[in-house]
Amino acid sequence: MDSDQFREFGKAMVDYIADYLDNIRNRKVLPSVNPGYLQPTIPQEAPQTGENWKSIMEDIERVIMPGVTHWHSPNFHAYCPTANSYPGIVGEMLSAGIGCVGFSWMSSPACTELEVAMMNWLGKLIGLPEEFLNCSNGSGGGIIQGSASESTFIALLTAKERMVRNIKNVHPQLDEGLIKAKLVAYTSDQANSSVEKAGMLGSMPMRLLPTDQNGCLRKETLEEAISNDKNAGLIPCYVVATLGTTGTCAFDNLEELGPVCRREKLWLHIDAAYAGSAFVCPEYRYLMRGVEYADSFDFNPHKWMMVNSDCSAMWVRNSRHLVEAFNVDRIYLQHEHEGVAPDYRHWQISLGRRFRALKLWFVLRSYGVEGIQKHIRSQIELAHYFEKLVKDDSRFEFACSSMGLVCFRMKAGDRLTQTLVDKLTQRKNIYVIPCYFQGNYVVRFVVCSRLTEIRDIDYGWREICEVASEILNGYITGKPNGELVSLLTVSNRSKRRENCIEQ
Amino acid sequence: MDSDQFREFGKAMVDYIADYLDNIRNRKVLPSVNPGYLQPTIPQEAPQTGENWKSIMEDIERVIMPGVTHWHSPNFHAYCPTANSYPGIVGEMLSAGIGCVGFSWMSSPACTELEVAMMNWLGKLIGLPEEFLNCSNGSGGGIIQGSASESTFIALLTAKERMVRNIKNVHPQLDEGLIKAKLVAYTSDQANSSVEKAGMLGSMPMRLLPTDQNGCLRKETLEEAISNDKNAGLIPCYVVATLGTTGTCAFDNLEELGPVCRREKLWLHIDAAYAGSAFVCPEYRYLMRGVEYADSFDFNPHKWMMVNSDCSAMWVRNSRHLVEAFNVDRIYLQHEHEGVAPDYRHWQISLGRRFRALKLWFVLRSYGVEGIQKHIRSQIELAHYFEKLVKDDSRFEFACSSMGLVCFRMKAGDRLTQTLVDKLTQRKNIYVIPCYFQGNYVVRFVVCSRLTEIRDIDYGWREICEVASEILNGYITGKPNGELVSLLTVSNRSKRRENCIEQ
Repeated sequence: MDSDQFREFGKAMVDYIADYLDNIRNRKVLPSVNPGYLQPTIPQEAPQTGENWKSIMEDIERVIMPGVTHWHSPNFHAYCPTANSYPGIVGEMLSAGIGCVGFSWMSSPACTELEVAMMNWLGKLIGLPEEFLNCSNGSGGGIIQGSASESTFIALLTAKERMVRNIKNVHPQLDEGLIKAKLVAYTSDQANSSVEKAGMLGSMPMRLLPTDQNGCLRKETLEEAISNDKNAGLIPCYVVATLGTTGTCAFDNLEELGPVCRREKLWLHIDAAYAGSAFVCPEYRYLMRGVEYADSFDFNPHKWMMVNSDCSAMWVRNSRHLVEAFNVDRIYLQHEHEGVAPDYRHWQISLGRRFRALKLWFVLRSYGVEGIQKHIRSQIELAHYFEKLVKDDSRFEFACSSMGLVCFRMKAGDRLTQTLVDKLTQRKNIYVIPCYFQGNYVVRFVVCSRLTEIRDIDYGWREICEVASEILNGYITGKPNGELVSLLTVSNRSKRRENCIEQ
Repeated sequence: MDSDQFREFGKAMVDYIADYLDNIRNRKVLPSVNPGYLQPTIPQEAPQTGENWKSIMEDIERVIMPGVTHWHSPNFHAYCPTANSYPGIVGEMLSAGIGCVGFSWMSSPACTELEVAMMNWLGKLIGLPEEFLNCSNGSGGGIIQGSASESTFIALLTAKERMVRNIKNVHPQLDEGLIKAKLVAYTSDQANSSVEKAGMLGSMPMRLLPTDQNGCLRKETLEEAISNDKNAGLIPCYVVATLGTTGTCAFDNLEELGPVCRREKLWLHIDAAYAGSAFVCPEYRYLMRGVEYADSFDFNPHKWMMVNSDCSAMWVRNSRHLVEAFNVDRIYLQHEHEGVAPDYRHWQISLGRRFRALKLWFVLRSYGVEGIQKHIRSQIELAHYFEKLVKDDSRFEFACSSMGLVCFRMKAGDRLTQTLVDKLTQRKNIYVIPCYFQGNYVVRFVVCSRLTEIRDIDYGWREICEVASEILNGYITGKPNGELVSLLTVSNRSKRRENCIEQ
């Protein structure tokens, strides 16, 4: 393909994307395909000779779109948002066009330096303490990782290395492997499954501690777990606190947990994957009080801040710990440009890295601080609007709400609420998923798409009411759905997994 | 930004990218900036209100381009290629436009199923044994990872988990932590630094075994290392063989190493990051003889197969081992659609994943098998052409060549060859980096860019000859470069690091 064909193909794709998003309300949010649908639509092998771009373009509607779950449909209210915006897409285009590899400063100075600058912009934007920024006088700094999962895992590996070093400094005779075998990590039973996975991959048992009735991890629980492990001869090492849990968007209490971590010398990592974007609005920053106790902090602009995936923003208080854990030379060379030109390959798992700061730059400039604040506030307002609809309808019971999420259930109970979710999923007009809150099966309704307006909330509510009426009528006339299976024998933890709120 | 503005911005960006690549010869391949250049060109904080897309567009040349190392310049001959092609860019655009998250089949069926299909196309294209493919009857399968570093690390974690399970099956009383503390891994001293890093992050000592004079790891060396470790009470677990080493593109002998791994029950991972693309041409497949002994195999279409980063293709012989190591539920549920709809989130570190198969689909269809073969063969031909230029010039000594790489040095010795590299880098007309081969400092000249033609090889050669003449004249007239520093006190391993061939 030469550049003239690219000009045609690329521009046709720009129009296709704009048309797709302009008309996304015309598509069912969920696809109707069965597993294995795609294979028969394409050949078994790559074509022998090249094809014209127009035949590729035509196949998008034939092969791909029937199997797409439309995350940017205004009727998508499941999981949590994944970001998509026009400047984000164009930033991704330029990143692909330049196609550099930023594994060292020299390999593309702009790639490293724009990332440093953008992580400073972003840190200031959400009110992060200055010691975490690249522009501070200390060793703090920010980096774009691929996902919050990666950041949690990277922080765990760094915590492990720091703890081993600290112990070996005092007891040089101890075997490194034996120390590692005794390390333990903590998080809450409401943390994202990626936190448990980080413990598994990093060979550090991750205790899933019980939360209070609001889904928050509290001081006493953490202290008791630490004490039990120390009594058993184990070594507490790493704590992951969540700001905005996956299930109900609960916020752990950092002002309680932070001092415990500081006193016990545990690495405190904060996972604010979804809710972190809200801190762009000063009125929500009270929810991160105590952040100054953290060793690392991560949130995903690729969730709620309109930067296309992948863009997970991670800051550390002391980047030397990261480099010590990740630099294969095991020598930390303090160079004269520290803060200006970090060697980001020593801050992450992979050596190679794409020019991801471009899309962040494009989005922050296109929207400006006010535009991003407006986006967050209007999505929360839509959630409040939905909450009022729930509360005003006597068939439903409000459970909890936080940020863009509202949880509710049918007063008629768990079984019928589950039927509601099942029927809604079968109809494919809106997409919601359930979770458990205070022992009850509840529906999670999340304002996800940047395109969602009040008319879409009304549409979703009408859909919910219609299905609820059908169910209640069927139940009242003595026709309960025979397919319903009691969930009561399933453990709470398994239930959470089963419900797939595991993004 | 609304969709009308996106249509303008996006199309302007398509033209910008086409113009950039059409005219890339007019730019110096290396930038002239110093660390910290970028910060003064932009504000200290994100703008308060949104900006017009035209001001963002204007800043690309002002802020970004001065700091770009142009990896797609036909004069870029350093490291190894990173891919960039027009259909790859358009595929990336569509992926950003759809913006789905493919962490489970349901979260976007097309995302999982196109990946399954493309990994089959790709596996067949390079002649991989069928047992590695999703379409085989067994448990083999392929997945797109973000990088070869990730794949090496993932295979290590899987190997660790498999070994612990195997040992616990026989000796259930043994402590898991103590088993892990005894595991050892092996690779060659020519392996990419990401292999050593995988050992470090995975807490498994990675032995960097010496290679033969051609840079290949041989059977006897591996056997001796295994035997030593077993005698010391350690447990050999994981071997990484390289097809196409970073320094000199050497190929480990799989037919020798494979049976040793099979006999000793070690996980054999093959890292063919760069050279794997060459197996699309049947005449190079003899270099992967013995691949049938592998447990996992990885190569990067984002290096030499024109698929924009990130697209690292990984196959495993038995995906159950992967799922057992990566699924937090620790239960492997064999579902009815195995092979058709794998749960890829259990095959990787992160839970979320982008729709990366689209760009692979676009590239394979746009070029076809013949187009990709032509690309590989013509790049190797250009390298042969360069090799002949070197051999025909009495001032130079040919060292070795393989695929798109030619290594050579000045007969005048290490110091002047180093001066050659330094001067070329200062002039910024071509970009080459050095490495060590058989104890000598040599220049690596790699045909990297898809845009490189014979006239560019001639240009590069003229540049090399001109600088070499200047050096030789200066030397002959008694003016050796006073800045030269002897490298002889630096260890070989450090030298390799220093020379930054660490992509």
